[in-house]
Amino acid sequence: MKPLQVIGRPAPRLDAAAIVTGAARYVDDLDFPGMLVGALLYPPLACARILRIDTSRARAVPGVVAVLTAGDVPGANSYLYSGQDDQPLLASAAVRYQGDVVAAVAAESLAAARLALDAIAVDYEPVEGVFDPIAAMAPGAPTVWPDRSNVHERLVIERGNPAAGFAEADVIIENEFSTQRIEHAFLEPEGAAALLGADGVITVHSSTQAPHSDRLQIARALGVVEHRVRVITPHIGGAFGGKQEGHVQIHAALLANATGRPVRIVRSREESIRAHVKRHPVRIRYKTGATREGLLTAIEVEAIGDTGPYINAGAEVMSVLAATVSGPYAVPHARIEALTVFTNNPIAGAMRGFGIPQATFACELQMDLLAKAVGLDPLEVRMRNFIDTGMHLPSGARVREGRPLRVCLNEAVDRSGWRRRNESERRPAAHLRRGWGVAAGLKTVGMGRDILDSAGIDVEMAPDGTVIVRTGATDMGQGAHTAIAQMVAEELGVMLDSIRVITPDTDHTLDAGPSCASRVTYVSGNAARAATAVIRESLLTTAAILVNRPIGDLSLRGGYVDADEEHVLSLAELAAAAQAANRPLHSDGFYAMEYPGERPDFGYPHASEVFSFGAQVAQVLVDVETGHVTVEALTAVHDAGRVINPDGAVGQLEGGAAMGLGQALIEELHAAEGIIRNDTLESYLIPTAADLPPMDVGIVEIPEPLAPFGAKGIGETSLAPVSAAVANAVADAIGATIKDLPITPERVLAAIRVGRQ
Amino acid sequence: MKPLQVIGRPAPRLDAAAIVTGAARYVDDLDFPGMLVGALLYPPLACARILRIDTSRARAVPGVVAVLTAGDVPGANSYLYSGQDDQPLLASAAVRYQGDVVAAVAAESLAAARLALDAIAVDYEPVEGVFDPIAAMAPGAPTVWPDRSNVHERLVIERGNPAAGFAEADVIIENEFSTQRIEHAFLEPEGAAALLGADGVITVHSSTQAPHSDRLQIARALGVVEHRVRVITPHIGGAFGGKQEGHVQIHAALLANATGRPVRIVRSREESIRAHVKRHPVRIRYKTGATREGLLTAIEVEAIGDTGPYINAGAEVMSVLAATVSGPYAVPHARIEALTVFTNNPIAGAMRGFGIPQATFACELQMDLLAKAVGLDPLEVRMRNFIDTGMHLPSGARVREGRPLRVCLNEAVDRSGWRRRNESERRPAAHLRRGWGVAAGLKTVGMGRDILDSAGIDVEMAPDGTVIVRTGATDMGQGAHTAIAQMVAEELGVMLDSIRVITPDTDHTLDAGPSCASRVTYVSGNAARAATAVIRESLLTTAAILVNRPIGDLSLRGGYVDADEEHVLSLAELAAAAQAANRPLHSDGFYAMEYPGERPDFGYPHASEVFSFGAQVAQVLVDVETGHVTVEALTAVHDAGRVINPDGAVGQLEGGAAMGLGQALIEELHAAEGIIRNDTLESYLIPTAADLPPMDVGIVEIPEPLAPFGAKGIGETSLAPVSAAVANAVADAIGATIKDLPITPERVLAAIRVGRQ
Repeated sequence: MKPLQVIGRPAPRLDAAAIVTGAARYVDDLDFPGMLVGALLYPPLACARILRIDTSRARAVPGVVAVLTAGDVPGANSYLYSGQDDQPLLASAAVRYQGDVVAAVAAESLAAARLALDAIAVDYEPVEGVFDPIAAMAPGAPTVWPDRSNVHERLVIERGNPAAGFAEADVIIENEFSTQRIEHAFLEPEGAAALLGADGVITVHSSTQAPHSDRLQIARALGVVEHRVRVITPHIGGAFGGKQEGHVQIHAALLANATGRPVRIVRSREESIRAHVKRHPVRIRYKTGATREGLLTAIEVEAIGDTGPYINAGAEVMSVLAATVSGPYAVPHARIEALTVFTNNPIAGAMRGFGIPQATFACELQMDLLAKAVGLDPLEVRMRNFIDTGMHLPSGARVREGRPLRVCLNEAVDRSGWRRRNESERRPAAHLRRGWGVAAGLKTVGMGRDILDSAGIDVEMAPDGTVIVRTGATDMGQGAHTAIAQMVAEELGVMLDSIRVITPDTDHTLDAGPSCASRVTYVSGNAARAATAVIRESLLTTAAILVNRPIGDLSLRGGYVDADEEHVLSLAELAAAAQAANRPLHSDGFYAMEYPGERPDFGYPHASEVFSFGAQVAQVLVDVETGHVTVEALTAVHDAGRVINPDGAVGQLEGGAAMGLGQALIEELHAAEGIIRNDTLESYLIPTAADLPPMDVGIVEIPEPLAPFGAKGIGETSLAPVSAAVANAVADAIGATIKDLPITPERVLAAIRVGRQ
Repeated sequence: MKPLQVIGRPAPRLDAAAIVTGAARYVDDLDFPGMLVGALLYPPLACARILRIDTSRARAVPGVVAVLTAGDVPGANSYLYSGQDDQPLLASAAVRYQGDVVAAVAAESLAAARLALDAIAVDYEPVEGVFDPIAAMAPGAPTVWPDRSNVHERLVIERGNPAAGFAEADVIIENEFSTQRIEHAFLEPEGAAALLGADGVITVHSSTQAPHSDRLQIARALGVVEHRVRVITPHIGGAFGGKQEGHVQIHAALLANATGRPVRIVRSREESIRAHVKRHPVRIRYKTGATREGLLTAIEVEAIGDTGPYINAGAEVMSVLAATVSGPYAVPHARIEALTVFTNNPIAGAMRGFGIPQATFACELQMDLLAKAVGLDPLEVRMRNFIDTGMHLPSGARVREGRPLRVCLNEAVDRSGWRRRNESERRPAAHLRRGWGVAAGLKTVGMGRDILDSAGIDVEMAPDGTVIVRTGATDMGQGAHTAIAQMVAEELGVMLDSIRVITPDTDHTLDAGPSCASRVTYVSGNAARAATAVIRESLLTTAAILVNRPIGDLSLRGGYVDADEEHVLSLAELAAAAQAANRPLHSDGFYAMEYPGERPDFGYPHASEVFSFGAQVAQVLVDVETGHVTVEALTAVHDAGRVINPDGAVGQLEGGAAMGLGQALIEELHAAEGIIRNDTLESYLIPTAADLPPMDVGIVEIPEPLAPFGAKGIGETSLAPVSAAVANAVADAIGATIKDLPITPERVLAAIRVGRQ
């Protein structure tokens, strides 16, 4: 490949200036003449029958324009997410968790809206709920749904003959791990502003990861065809998976439709924490068999995920967990069972990592425990079992490029204090213990085989050589638009400032699917390459005629086409000439994820086959008196295939690792009887900049086959190994493994107590 | 071809409801916070040097925010139209016609803007101008440009050996014709509103036929790259060629850029009439040789067009005139010379018909005069000489489908009173004379060979089978968007109401070229077909799998795909299934006009080869005492190739014929020393609905090769033959031919007087 001109060079985020100067407009900044305030009524308890809803007093509140309940939904009264429609937009018969919406109000002011919510009389009859997934699976337990089992889905992945695998094992270890319920804590809570145009089109400005999915859902709820709905994404203040589904945008559309006036709904922080999906709390029983040389012979895993009362992405998260819980290891025999269980707890769904952080925690603790059992170094046991190119995971996924895995681990170890750990002071003070932990990991890229996973994109060059890119892929802060612009600039041989990106608007940009699954760089990037190919062809054909040289001699770079020193044309001249010669200077590109290989007859049919690998080393200091864990250093080396924007990539990896540290040490949503107790950012703590340890982020670039420029998404990969690396380091420090997240002082002290016994 | 479902069925204009209810928003309806009123200063005389411009008093007028003169243009201070840049945006050294702009003002109110215009002190030094093109060509005449001849261009088209052709002739007739300066008189004068965004993008809402050309011109004047300019077309109230170039949109952008505030400029009717291009007044000397059987042997034509002081589309109009002045006839030997002459008269340029109405008037009067000379019926002399498929015009254009020509003439004659004309009362009263006239004609479709003539379009199907079409082709009232929607609906097998058209916006819609040259149906229609092909393929491939039948057995229609009665799927099901299977449901289409045949070695290299033919019969009653001509009936039969929307087609043909009647009888802009004397719609009369005769419009459908569904544009074709048909009818009535337009009572009385002598 010729040297890259734009890709791999640091680029400021295209919207950086707008964000830091305040010019960027988020939903809450939008203002339309006559706009009403929308607000939603949530129930005071998680599980109840609704006997009566009386909105008459609320309608009489001065300034109230509309009060909607279930009967006022013109179309389908349900969210539609991944084909599931069990969650009502407006609950009428029952509430099943505290985030259900009972009524929607539009009023002239927030005060009037709040008075109206307060004036809605709802008679609830409390119903016995189920708040523990294990209890929910017990015979005779109350069921969340009268006609459905509390076990929504039981996915079993099998490979080989696990019994035979365990029979071959010299050692068998079995452990149980648990992970906690986690909040996305995006900076901007969910919001949307909707207005009905004179042309009958309803336009919704939505803080969303999935504008085309929003369009479908809004159309369905309004009972109109899709092209009568327009969804626009303004700037988005973070999402992390929590905005790839319906939140308040459908309610805003219902209220705008009912009132004929613009309506904006923005959730308060408390509403946001209560209502939107969380990271699944999961219990994982993990049994591993290995030879005395530490080679894995079999695993058996059972994972139970508490998904709340509605399916949402629950079964999908658990399937990705199941497909990756074997880690980046070759396992000849495996049985993995993942249960998605209904409860009346907060609904769980998509969150950065999508099941893999939970899976990695269990797997990587288990690998350390195996190392100890067979007396091997934790690195060595990993190296011996690492998967490689062409090999299959138990999920059936064939690894297309496995080399980065070993490179990541070696580099993480080399860059960190790992190799010097035994020379370092392990007990710097009487009450302090220092330890090191390692963890490897993999993150899938893309939705998986035979799942909708495509993107369109439009690229158009003006006659002066500047370019407009129209993408329906949302950038919720991850820098997707900058990366797409870089890829387009690279292909067309223009400088980055020649590219302008038109951001998602379903009237104007093609469906690129949701921004999730680390898929945007890969899928929209390949779509962009397809689009630019047509323009390149026009430019090069025209240039070949103008300079009378074969196309093969020509290259586009830096805003010029050159054959040799005498034959240099600016792209501005060239684009105008190509246009004048009636050649196209635009194209839409389309790309759908490819699975060219045969699917094996074992595993999970929808497993993704593209992985971003990584390895991390954590150095911790544990205060054995208080139980407090300080992460002194975190080294994270991850595999990007190819780095598009080094600044953005480092930012993503650091941000993911920071989130992982929150998971490891401090974050947990506490719910009692389904009601979240810490529903503010004062009571639910996330790591701040001041809490972060020195981080050393490394990136390995071994191009991924079929990926654009070899690049794959790295927005999620660094989150997963953190909690295992930290937990393994804590175990190294205190000599006891904490198998439950987060690693709170209480758990540290308890582990020390148990270890002493 | 399978039976058409949507094409050929009457469809209400997509925007009809918006227009008649007042919901449609034109430039003058737009309002942006803080918007300023922009106004332009025009000179009081047509030809002068500018010695000094003093804006100090104007700047001091309360409420004035900016006063711009030539030095304030950051980029190029010129219009750019068809590659010509001789016309300044803001004149600094000289004014060359009364529509030059000397200064631009932005103010808080129209009153303040007018006071400011009034307060600008300009010292003009009058210069001897040239106001007659014949005089302008005389040696020693003052020149419009110091360094350029007044004859801007002399185009000569030659075929065969004209001298030999005339030598073969039995009869030679020679006549001179003249046509007048005509005003477009669109309902909505030129206007634009511009605003500069926080992102540095300048957005201009422009009443334009050519948004992408506007973008180029605005970027050039502002000195910015093209993708920093966004041009949006709101509803447009007519254009007729007069809005395919820069008018006030560049000035609005300059003012918005200078002030940082939104600025709107809308021309008054008087300003509009004075400033924008007119239909060229042309003098045509026409010499025809024929055998005694009436077969043409040679023609020699000289046409002199008064183009005003700037090139604009002048040479192009005259070239189209030259390429079509031979009419729809086979002429073995020809010499056609077209001169585009500079004067200080109002600038002339594009207007519906683009030179062909002038050409047709001369040619078709000449044919009647030839018929008289050889003693043949006017029909017979035409039929004997009609061009046919595969034959070349003197321009070198090869006719791809010539059959409609004879069909049109026969049908026009059959439907009209022509065949009964000699049974009718030719002298219903002592002062009245009745007469019949016929004229044939052809209108080119497309810009011509080797000229930029392409279009892109985006088509996207939502998963529920509804469709969004994004077109950059403007609909200025001609119904282009409805026709495009019908073609897309036909191709995708959906009902018309499943299509929503996103109207031109350079940020969101592809360059489709200007809406001119009767090219939109053909070029954007073919682009739409290309775009839909990808979606059809996805749908049919998916359907074939779902119903297990070969694609060839399937057809898309009425919102369904069906193989047979048992296998029917709705497109909503099918589209969702195709999407889920990762097949594309969108595509951009691109089409560039094709000229597959060899260009002959004679003629005009850029001649178009696609023609809409037509024939008209006019019945007139002439008051020989007052000279007043009443058109009693007009029969117009034209060739559409294929009718997309019968309602729209009839509307276009009737509208064009009405405009032709204005040209024939009443319209003329009178200029003295370059100053238009009738610059209001009270003094410049156009036909009103009450003035129109009963019209019988017929449409012939013989599909045009390479055209989408065989359809070609018919927005201009009916205008051209009207004045000739009327003039021939008047000649039939009074026995004397009036060779100058319009056919005023004065001219009629004069002709009668001459005839009597």
